[in-house]
Amino acid sequence: MKKYKGICTPKGFVAGGIASGIKKKGLDLALIYSASPCKAQAVMTKNMVLAAPNIVTKKKLSKSKNMHAVLINSGNANCLMGKKGIMDAEELCGLVAEKLRINKNSVLCASTGIIGKKLPLAKMKRAVPPLVNKINVDGGISAARAILTTDKFSKSKSVTFKIKGVPVKIGAIAKGAGMIEPNLATMLCFVSTDANISAGILKRALTEATNSSFNCISIDGQMSTNDMVLILANGLANNAVISNTDSVGYKTFKNALYEVLGHLAKQIVADAEGGSKIIEINIKNTKSESDAKIVARSIANSALVKTAMYGEDPNFGRIMAAVGSSPGTKLKLNKIKLFIQGICVVKNSDICSFDLKKLRAKLRKKEINITIDLEQGASSFTMLTSDLTKEYVRLNSAYST
Amino acid sequence: MKKYKGICTPKGFVAGGIASGIKKKGLDLALIYSASPCKAQAVMTKNMVLAAPNIVTKKKLSKSKNMHAVLINSGNANCLMGKKGIMDAEELCGLVAEKLRINKNSVLCASTGIIGKKLPLAKMKRAVPPLVNKINVDGGISAARAILTTDKFSKSKSVTFKIKGVPVKIGAIAKGAGMIEPNLATMLCFVSTDANISAGILKRALTEATNSSFNCISIDGQMSTNDMVLILANGLANNAVISNTDSVGYKTFKNALYEVLGHLAKQIVADAEGGSKIIEINIKNTKSESDAKIVARSIANSALVKTAMYGEDPNFGRIMAAVGSSPGTKLKLNKIKLFIQGICVVKNSDICSFDLKKLRAKLRKKEINITIDLEQGASSFTMLTSDLTKEYVRLNSAYST
Repeated sequence: MKKYKGICTPKGFVAGGIASGIKKKGLDLALIYSASPCKAQAVMTKNMVLAAPNIVTKKKLSKSKNMHAVLINSGNANCLMGKKGIMDAEELCGLVAEKLRINKNSVLCASTGIIGKKLPLAKMKRAVPPLVNKINVDGGISAARAILTTDKFSKSKSVTFKIKGVPVKIGAIAKGAGMIEPNLATMLCFVSTDANISAGILKRALTEATNSSFNCISIDGQMSTNDMVLILANGLANNAVISNTDSVGYKTFKNALYEVLGHLAKQIVADAEGGSKIIEINIKNTKSESDAKIVARSIANSALVKTAMYGEDPNFGRIMAAVGSSPGTKLKLNKIKLFIQGICVVKNSDICSFDLKKLRAKLRKKEINITIDLEQGASSFTMLTSDLTKEYVRLNSAYST
Repeated sequence: MKKYKGICTPKGFVAGGIASGIKKKGLDLALIYSASPCKAQAVMTKNMVLAAPNIVTKKKLSKSKNMHAVLINSGNANCLMGKKGIMDAEELCGLVAEKLRINKNSVLCASTGIIGKKLPLAKMKRAVPPLVNKINVDGGISAARAILTTDKFSKSKSVTFKIKGVPVKIGAIAKGAGMIEPNLATMLCFVSTDANISAGILKRALTEATNSSFNCISIDGQMSTNDMVLILANGLANNAVISNTDSVGYKTFKNALYEVLGHLAKQIVADAEGGSKIIEINIKNTKSESDAKIVARSIANSALVKTAMYGEDPNFGRIMAAVGSSPGTKLKLNKIKLFIQGICVVKNSDICSFDLKKLRAKLRKKEINITIDLEQGASSFTMLTSDLTKEYVRLNSAYST
């Protein structure tokens, strides 16, 4: 049987993870490497407090075109450390470059973990040479594990597809909503591909696929200082270059990328801290997609809706109140229809007659669907979130700075 | 010793509460009445899903100038009941008017409680005559109790002040963030005053005092379908009419009103569902008040900050991340200073050296202060919130529709 390769599925990528000692135990330092130079693009957090590795990676991406590697650590966010944080991140990238005999500007970096503590630089530096020696095509699984914080399982996905008959591959690893150690729901995702694609088109595909996947999930409405989705494309598949968004090749590539990111986004919600349910919120028939997004977010970020779902209670009043408080929208709510698990609960500003016992039974499922039809237009938006549980509060209050 | 009169402190106001049977036990129907006609003004929820009593009260306020009474029930929000809800609210107001021999358009109404259930109209109608017979100048306390839902204590406040030597009084009752029965953090506040004041000026004073009090608190970022702050002014103090916002009389009145509403707002936070702490968030030296508000709200609504405070953990990383994700602001964060309980924790994008043990000890207090100095201007904003506890989740998930 073929071994699962994850992020090493595309041609030319190797990876690995090591326990450097940032965490008390377990893997905490990962390296992804392609000997062939890569086009690279990233989508970053919009948080104005940006962690040092994000600043460093952003700067390198704006300067250099050929990338080879990305070094990721878990257990420490390297955030709020002033100039020292940036110097540390650059020093580590430099050391990786030296060991791999590549340009230091071709090594990117990312971090996740506690905010406001210095990196244990000496430990990490000692771990770089054995990590560089260790990386290989079977190292995808240990790289996936090394970037985790409080995640309960590692998240990895790969797909193979064809562009004009030529096989092309995408692999990816991600970590999600583990807030206790990292201090925040830092979301990291690293994507490798052997697709031959121009840099601008790669950026476009990454942005679009991120908007339809990671930007459609919300655990607790928080935005991390370290969030990053990074893609490396080395072109080794030798497909005809994708350089046009109107081409079939682009659509195929983007759909495959969306498949990978969408899968990982759903896994992140399934592994939400303390979460016991996956809640899918469908907002249908709004005048604009923006209205649909605002309504979806208002529900997804309502502590009252999320606690009700945890309690398996079809509390339509809370859902309707969240719809009604969607900021910046001017919805007409007289025709609104609310469905919970497919059962119509509210219609024309009035309660429907429905079987409460049956609805309650349906809420015992792990996957919950809330659908709202505004009957005002043709736009829609779907969002995934988790419930709000005692375990979430326990995890996030028991944490010690 | 003089009996505490609360909302019946101003001349000419009587009130009372009765157990009508909406709730399984306890007072649940309150009436406030002034035989002298009142100017009345209200500030209502911005939720687009508006409860029937709010629709009815809004309509009456826009039509008629002389108000006499307000009927308030707890235990049922009379929301999402279609036309039936409005008819029920109007019928109850009509019955109160009949018994008091006043115009039915001079009786206002408000409700708080579960959303999506019909009012037990027969029970409530039976309770109106004895309630009307019961109201008197010592009924302020039972009225304050009758409007509560899951509040742990009743909230009442009165002040006496002078306008050009003439004594003027304001009394008020409020209910707060009890979400388990009412389905939402419905905030109701009823204010009586014997001030002689013009209607437009009364509206202005109410809006300004509400913005500086109830609009500066946030329990869980939710907005109710039933929120209402209502003021009745019967003019019996016989002060020279307040008809100009530049007058000393206006300032005196507004400050007194703010004192009353500010006190009640703080009591609401102190009684937040499941809350164990009061968190004051001071945002200082921003370019605009709007920026300060956005930053304050971003912190006040962060589940991660609120769980950290519950855990008595000085988790500055979460606070800084909340500042950094303030939507719509373009803050420069290089000069930001963060103080927790008066201790400087972050300065110039870097961690200060501080005594963690001492800071931890200070977080054991019930009142927590978070101050952020942006050093970008002269605006500021202060907000109160509570922590997020296991008890909040228990209360809001154990509830049964």
